[in-house]
Amino acid sequence: MRQKDIYVKNMTLDEAQSRWSTALDRVHFFSNPPTENIAVEQALGRVTATPVFAAHSSPAYNAAAMDGIAVHFADLAGACEAAPVRLKNNQFIPINTGNNLPDDLDAVVMIEDVHYVDDETAELYHPATPWQHVRTIGEDIVTTELIVPQGHTIRPIDQGAMLATGITAITVTVAPKVIVIPTGSELIQPGSTPKPGQIIEFNSRILTGYLNQWGANAKGAAPVLDDKEKLREALRDAAADNDLVIINAGASAGTRDYTSTVLAELGEVIVHGVAIKPGKPVILATIGTTPVIGLPGYPVSAILTMRLFVMETIYKFHGAQKPAPQLVTALMSRPMHSAMGVDEFVRVTLGKVGKELISTPAGKGAGAVMSLVRADGIVTISAGSEGIGSGEPVEVELLRSLDDIQRALVSIGSHDNILDILTNLLHKDRRAIRLSSAHVGSMGGIMAIRRGEAHMAGTHLLDSESGEYNISFIKRFLPNMPLLLVNLCHRQQGLLVAKGNPLQIRRLTDIATRNITFINRQNGAGTRLLTDKILKDCNIEESKINGYEREEYTHMSVAAAISSGSVDCGMGILAAANALDLDFVEVAEERYDLIIPEVFAKDPKILTLLEMIRENKEFRELVHKLGGYSLRDCGQIIFRQ
Amino acid sequence: MRQKDIYVKNMTLDEAQSRWSTALDRVHFFSNPPTENIAVEQALGRVTATPVFAAHSSPAYNAAAMDGIAVHFADLAGACEAAPVRLKNNQFIPINTGNNLPDDLDAVVMIEDVHYVDDETAELYHPATPWQHVRTIGEDIVTTELIVPQGHTIRPIDQGAMLATGITAITVTVAPKVIVIPTGSELIQPGSTPKPGQIIEFNSRILTGYLNQWGANAKGAAPVLDDKEKLREALRDAAADNDLVIINAGASAGTRDYTSTVLAELGEVIVHGVAIKPGKPVILATIGTTPVIGLPGYPVSAILTMRLFVMETIYKFHGAQKPAPQLVTALMSRPMHSAMGVDEFVRVTLGKVGKELISTPAGKGAGAVMSLVRADGIVTISAGSEGIGSGEPVEVELLRSLDDIQRALVSIGSHDNILDILTNLLHKDRRAIRLSSAHVGSMGGIMAIRRGEAHMAGTHLLDSESGEYNISFIKRFLPNMPLLLVNLCHRQQGLLVAKGNPLQIRRLTDIATRNITFINRQNGAGTRLLTDKILKDCNIEESKINGYEREEYTHMSVAAAISSGSVDCGMGILAAANALDLDFVEVAEERYDLIIPEVFAKDPKILTLLEMIRENKEFRELVHKLGGYSLRDCGQIIFRQ
Repeated sequence: MRQKDIYVKNMTLDEAQSRWSTALDRVHFFSNPPTENIAVEQALGRVTATPVFAAHSSPAYNAAAMDGIAVHFADLAGACEAAPVRLKNNQFIPINTGNNLPDDLDAVVMIEDVHYVDDETAELYHPATPWQHVRTIGEDIVTTELIVPQGHTIRPIDQGAMLATGITAITVTVAPKVIVIPTGSELIQPGSTPKPGQIIEFNSRILTGYLNQWGANAKGAAPVLDDKEKLREALRDAAADNDLVIINAGASAGTRDYTSTVLAELGEVIVHGVAIKPGKPVILATIGTTPVIGLPGYPVSAILTMRLFVMETIYKFHGAQKPAPQLVTALMSRPMHSAMGVDEFVRVTLGKVGKELISTPAGKGAGAVMSLVRADGIVTISAGSEGIGSGEPVEVELLRSLDDIQRALVSIGSHDNILDILTNLLHKDRRAIRLSSAHVGSMGGIMAIRRGEAHMAGTHLLDSESGEYNISFIKRFLPNMPLLLVNLCHRQQGLLVAKGNPLQIRRLTDIATRNITFINRQNGAGTRLLTDKILKDCNIEESKINGYEREEYTHMSVAAAISSGSVDCGMGILAAANALDLDFVEVAEERYDLIIPEVFAKDPKILTLLEMIRENKEFRELVHKLGGYSLRDCGQIIFRQ
Repeated sequence: MRQKDIYVKNMTLDEAQSRWSTALDRVHFFSNPPTENIAVEQALGRVTATPVFAAHSSPAYNAAAMDGIAVHFADLAGACEAAPVRLKNNQFIPINTGNNLPDDLDAVVMIEDVHYVDDETAELYHPATPWQHVRTIGEDIVTTELIVPQGHTIRPIDQGAMLATGITAITVTVAPKVIVIPTGSELIQPGSTPKPGQIIEFNSRILTGYLNQWGANAKGAAPVLDDKEKLREALRDAAADNDLVIINAGASAGTRDYTSTVLAELGEVIVHGVAIKPGKPVILATIGTTPVIGLPGYPVSAILTMRLFVMETIYKFHGAQKPAPQLVTALMSRPMHSAMGVDEFVRVTLGKVGKELISTPAGKGAGAVMSLVRADGIVTISAGSEGIGSGEPVEVELLRSLDDIQRALVSIGSHDNILDILTNLLHKDRRAIRLSSAHVGSMGGIMAIRRGEAHMAGTHLLDSESGEYNISFIKRFLPNMPLLLVNLCHRQQGLLVAKGNPLQIRRLTDIATRNITFINRQNGAGTRLLTDKILKDCNIEESKINGYEREEYTHMSVAAAISSGSVDCGMGILAAANALDLDFVEVAEERYDLIIPEVFAKDPKILTLLEMIRENKEFRELVHKLGGYSLRDCGQIIFRQ
């Protein structure tokens, strides 16, 4: 066994993109994209490969623009209320919108202005101007004039204009063929349950999804096992059959990393390793005239890297423009540190709380798919910066529409399973509210309220002296802030243990006295305070608890650790035990409240939420199904300051 | 023959939308949309009909987050440079990113920090923290937690999150079945050449295109002839087979209007006639539980009306949110008058000229499809307003991305066919420039430059006294404005006549002396000035010219009128004659220049254009193919002030 080679290079993003662009030009990636001739009716969303000119004029003849009568304008000269002009029916003809204007007539009078004296005579009180209410031939477009240029993405209105002017088929670009090859012997197909060490292969599905949205014809390949020869064969075949090859994983410095070696043997490695985070191990290469991109294995790294090195390439292949990123300015809610010399891309959630748009980091793990599901945008911390200070303005590239973001009710604080129910009910009832919740513990919620980052915070902080919940903490940490404290629920806290409670755990003291492993909650969590209070009441030292130092951020994460068998017990709510089919040893009932600053108390989003928790029957039914809750005070104002 | 009934009602837009909404609720249009269970891999872009919860946790086990070795953190206590800790290979195992962490180990040390003393011994210089570089089970999401709520439109990342957590099939809404029925005996199918009075049926293609983009399953029906019984039958069948019926045309007050009568017989007419422009004759009705919408016949009216009464309905059917309109503020370049009591929707083009975004009306004709192809946005002039003054700020709903709009090089002025060539070449060469040109004549161009609305103006104004082009007009109308006058071309002006010149027209004076019909250009057009100068030089009175009062705005429109046989001759450029295969009697060669204000002379868009007209070979070849041009001075600066 020997130490692995670290990446040969660690190039700046600009330099990597520039070399990549040169390499793509050298293999003529953008020259003469394949085209096909298709029916205009099938062309929605396609990109024109040639300019489209009108085959005939529109209108194709002089046409009435109104319902009425066609006349010769000169016949109406001098007509007025006092001296109307009468036309006999050989001087006019009734005409409808769109009808052909006879060659000898040159104006249309609206039906509203025509007074029939008898069946054959019309009386008119106003003169006409030449060609009034007539759409003359070619008024809209004349034969041979340009409808849309080359490189234009076709909209329904463009199809209409083409059909209207006699164009029924056009030449459009053909999407580049892209294959996404997953690698790794640990990969299994969706639908199987992963055994330890196995990973469901879903990256290729995400990557092909984005590629196709950008205009590629992308397919996923079967995973290639960790075998150098198999990888070589797969890459060689893929490069021969496709316009672009994406190989996923095998780009890390792990034992499986044959990718760069094989690429160097089959073709040329342009770039290996870029000073970006995530995405550092990216490989940019060519095999013959086919560009090949090695993306990191983690889904978030793979997606962000693909946006940097592939997205624009696909649009440019069609001769079209990549849509401009949607950018907004927001204030960073907490400091973000970043290494100098690396362009770092940080997923953030955004919330319009009060007047400011607030940006909060949404988790850093490159493996965390959910962090990207929940993310509202991406902040780039450039290589020249050591990070962003709290309260500093940052430019955010949106992953969700600004409208969606502004509809968010921002909830930061303690985690409770009821929040999932609220998220769904608010969304489904079309109340145009999206509950955006971050789980940072009760104290984290209070601090978020203090900094003006949240509309509300869930909290269940037990004052170990008074035995009261939340109020003393509010008085201490949010003095003088006008606010409401509204009860959401009472809930059972207890010890989560494996199904059947095989170790017969009865109380927290059992952990200290017997060889039982524990999993804790983070500092500032209400459940951590409860744990500490019980330990203190029983005079148990922290060091006696095996696992006291292992911290999770939610009840569900604690339950998951116990469910997997990696730990014996932890403190949490009954709902979490029920969700994962664990046993539960009740310890206490506690009160879980929502802190709502007075300034948001009349916000329609808060009013809707309060109405829902106070009156919605489905909400109450779903909460009771979770188990361990009492809604006896739900929606009541517990305290006001 | 009798005067037609005018619309019974003329309701406000708000009132119409409110009644329509009530009617849709009454027929339970939004209740229990049809759903289907589909594979997650097929679900991109679909809308969830139920919330989606994780079927298992992700990660599904404690996994290494780095390549390195798995250790027990306690073994490294106290490790430092001076006193490294050596681990034997029964105390650690090599581990790769994503591998399962063995149950008895609780931390990962990165490969970079591992120093192998021999094949069995690793030396470490730093202590480890518990669970460092480990992704614990459920870190991303725990079994039963919410992935996405009901009513969520699925993105690739959502598919990934579902597959990662064991979800392979989900329940999504089924798109509402919509049929679009065109009516009118004058309709012919695309691909045929319309005879006078015939119209190519393209509206149903535009309308189904938009409906499908909004999330409907829309199909066009065969056109229904102007026959009350056939219409009744078509509507009855369509209502039975579809979730929503759209009937196009037959909603105007013309002789063909049976629609409202038939709808009242078959069901209930909720609204007929709304105080909007365009779109006034819209009909909102129900047949049984099926909503039926009668849209006006003109394409622009039909599209705008559908946006008002159908778009949101389709999103709401899925339980999804209609995307918020993209709004920008722009300054109106010229006054827009509007009738009180009517909500008017004005198509506009937008241009970023200097610092301000300038909004200019893009043609009013409801039949003008090209006006909507070219439009960048829509301005609403509300019922309570008489219009918008010049220079007033207006809110514009974008039809094109703001980025696209900001890429526009705004050219306002005289029309020349070379502009079509430039539009396409600039677009196709991926120079990120879109030429947005408005044809308002040479004087219109000078005035646009004066008001700061355009980057450049094409002009060919002949000073009848000096015989010079453009310069005297610039001195008079743009005094003191620093600018360049750059030649685009010299071109042949002359009389456009039918192929073979059957009337043997030789000069303009022929028109005055013989029974020949003429078609003129608008006031302020360079070609009009040339015509007037020749008439004056020959002492011909305007009244002697049959057709002097009939005005068109472009050379091509003049050519189209002659080509159709509706007029005998008109003044225009050789390129227009060539395009429509007309004969041409040369009258003069004239100079066509571009006025470019000094402030835009270094704008990259202008620099690119100048480089293209000076150096691009393809440009020169395409211009020479048009015929009648000399590029001997093309790109030269003629004058500077």
